[in-house]
Amino acid sequence: MSLKMVQTMSQSDTPTAAVLIIGNEILSGRTPDANLNAIAKKLVGIGIRLAEARIVPDIEDEIVAAVNALRARYTYVLTTGGIGPTHDDITADSIGKAFGVAIVEHPDARARLESHYTSANLTASRLRMARMPEGASLIDNPVSAAPGFRIGNVYVLAGVPNIMAAMLDNVVATLKHGPTIHSVTVSGYVAESVIAEELGAIAAHHPDLDIGSYPWVKNARYGTALVTRGTDQAAVKEAADQIFALVAKHGGEPVIE
Amino acid sequence: MSLKMVQTMSQSDTPTAAVLIIGNEILSGRTPDANLNAIAKKLVGIGIRLAEARIVPDIEDEIVAAVNALRARYTYVLTTGGIGPTHDDITADSIGKAFGVAIVEHPDARARLESHYTSANLTASRLRMARMPEGASLIDNPVSAAPGFRIGNVYVLAGVPNIMAAMLDNVVATLKHGPTIHSVTVSGYVAESVIAEELGAIAAHHPDLDIGSYPWVKNARYGTALVTRGTDQAAVKEAADQIFALVAKHGGEPVIE
Repeated sequence: MSLKMVQTMSQSDTPTAAVLIIGNEILSGRTPDANLNAIAKKLVGIGIRLAEARIVPDIEDEIVAAVNALRARYTYVLTTGGIGPTHDDITADSIGKAFGVAIVEHPDARARLESHYTSANLTASRLRMARMPEGASLIDNPVSAAPGFRIGNVYVLAGVPNIMAAMLDNVVATLKHGPTIHSVTVSGYVAESVIAEELGAIAAHHPDLDIGSYPWVKNARYGTALVTRGTDQAAVKEAADQIFALVAKHGGEPVIE
Repeated sequence: MSLKMVQTMSQSDTPTAAVLIIGNEILSGRTPDANLNAIAKKLVGIGIRLAEARIVPDIEDEIVAAVNALRARYTYVLTTGGIGPTHDDITADSIGKAFGVAIVEHPDARARLESHYTSANLTASRLRMARMPEGASLIDNPVSAAPGFRIGNVYVLAGVPNIMAAMLDNVVATLKHGPTIHSVTVSGYVAESVIAEELGAIAAHHPDLDIGSYPWVKNARYGTALVTRGTDQAAVKEAADQIFALVAKHGGEPVIE
C-alpha cells in the first residue's frame, strides 16, 4: 500500500526498533491490541524506525525465540505484556532465558512494591513482580508501582495500555533519537489507480522518501491520501508539491492534511 | 496475562494459523491495524488456533522471509495488504518469490477486472491486480472485484478492512475446522494478585484448558475477568464454576459474562 521504504530504511543513522506483543488474549481475539499504534507513533516522533512487530502467545519457547531473533537485528526491542502477578506471567523468566541469565529478586523493585502495598497485602503473587533477569535495570511505573525493566537492548513493558504508555514515556527519554522524520499528507478525490503511474514516477525521482498511497471512502466518494515521509524536509515539501499538482490535474481537489 | 496455553496448543487436532500484516502504514503509526482482531475472532470461531502474528514493512526480502518461516510452521497463513494497483504493492511478487514460482497474469482475475471496469478505465495500474504467482487460485472480492489469491497454505487478502472481511468469509468456508473452542468468562471485583495462587491451582488441575486473567478498572473499582477456554465443554464449565466460587469467596460478587 505504500511506495518503497527501502531507501529510508537503509539510512544507517536511523535507529531501528521491533515490538514484541506477548499475550494469548490478543491471538484469541478476546482483546484488540491497543499498544502497537501508540508505540509506533511515539517512536516515529523521535526518529526511530519501527521495522517489525510480532505477537506471540504465553509460551516460553516462543518468547525466547522471538526476543533473540529481534534483539540481534534491531537497535531496540520493546515488549508488552506478561509481567503481572499471576503465575502465567512468564515474560521475565523468558527474557532471562533468552539472555542466558538467572532470575533474581531485584531489591529496588521489591522496595517499590513494599512501599506501595501494606505488608499484609504484599502477597507472594505480588512479590513475583520483583523477579527480573540478573543485571536488569528498572523502568518506572508511576501508575501501579510494579516496574518494567531493561536488559541489554530489550525494554520490557506492561500490557495494560495506560501503564504501558507511562513506562514508554520513561523509556523514550533514554533512547538514541534519529533524525526527525517529516511528513506531508495530500488528500483528494482521485482513485489511486488513476494516479498510480505518475505517482510511481515521482517516487522514483525521490528515492530517499517514503511515499504511501492509501485509498479511502467518504460520503460515498472515493479518494486517496498520499503521504510523503522523510528526513530531508525540503525534499518532502518538493515531492508533496508535485503530488498536489498531480491530484489537481486529475480533478481531485487536493488538500494538505 | 493468561495461564499457560501450552496444553491446548499441542492438541494435534487443532489446526493452526499465522497472520502476516504487510504495510509500512501500520509500522509508521499512521494507521492502526484493524484486521488482526477480526481475523482472530473468525478463526477461533471455527476452532483454528491463531498461533502467531507478524507485521512487516513493504520490503520484498522481509515479506519473503516471513512467509517462508510461517508457512513451514503453521497449517494456514493469512496475509493482509499490498495487493492494490500502485507499483509499491509488492505482495504478489513477494509471495511468488517465496514459493519460487513466476508471476503471471491470471486470466480469470483479468476477466473480473474487465467486467468491473470499462475498457477505458482498465489502466495498466489496475491490470497489475491480475498478476499472481503461477498456480494461485482466486479468492473472491465482492466489494471491488480485484481478487485475493491462495497458493499452497498461504491466503493473500486485501488490507482495506471491509474488503479483507469479505475475502475472509470466503476463505474460512474452505478451511479445515477444528473442534469448537468453548469459553466462559467470570468477572468480579477482586484483584488478580489476591486470587493468583488459588487460580494457579485450578489451572494446574485443568491442564487442557487455557485460563486467562485480565485485570480491569470500572468506576474506580478494580476487578478481574477470568476467561476459561477449551474444547472440552464439561471441563470448561467445571473450571469456571470453581473460579466463580473462588471470586465469591474473596467477596468479588462474581458474574458470568
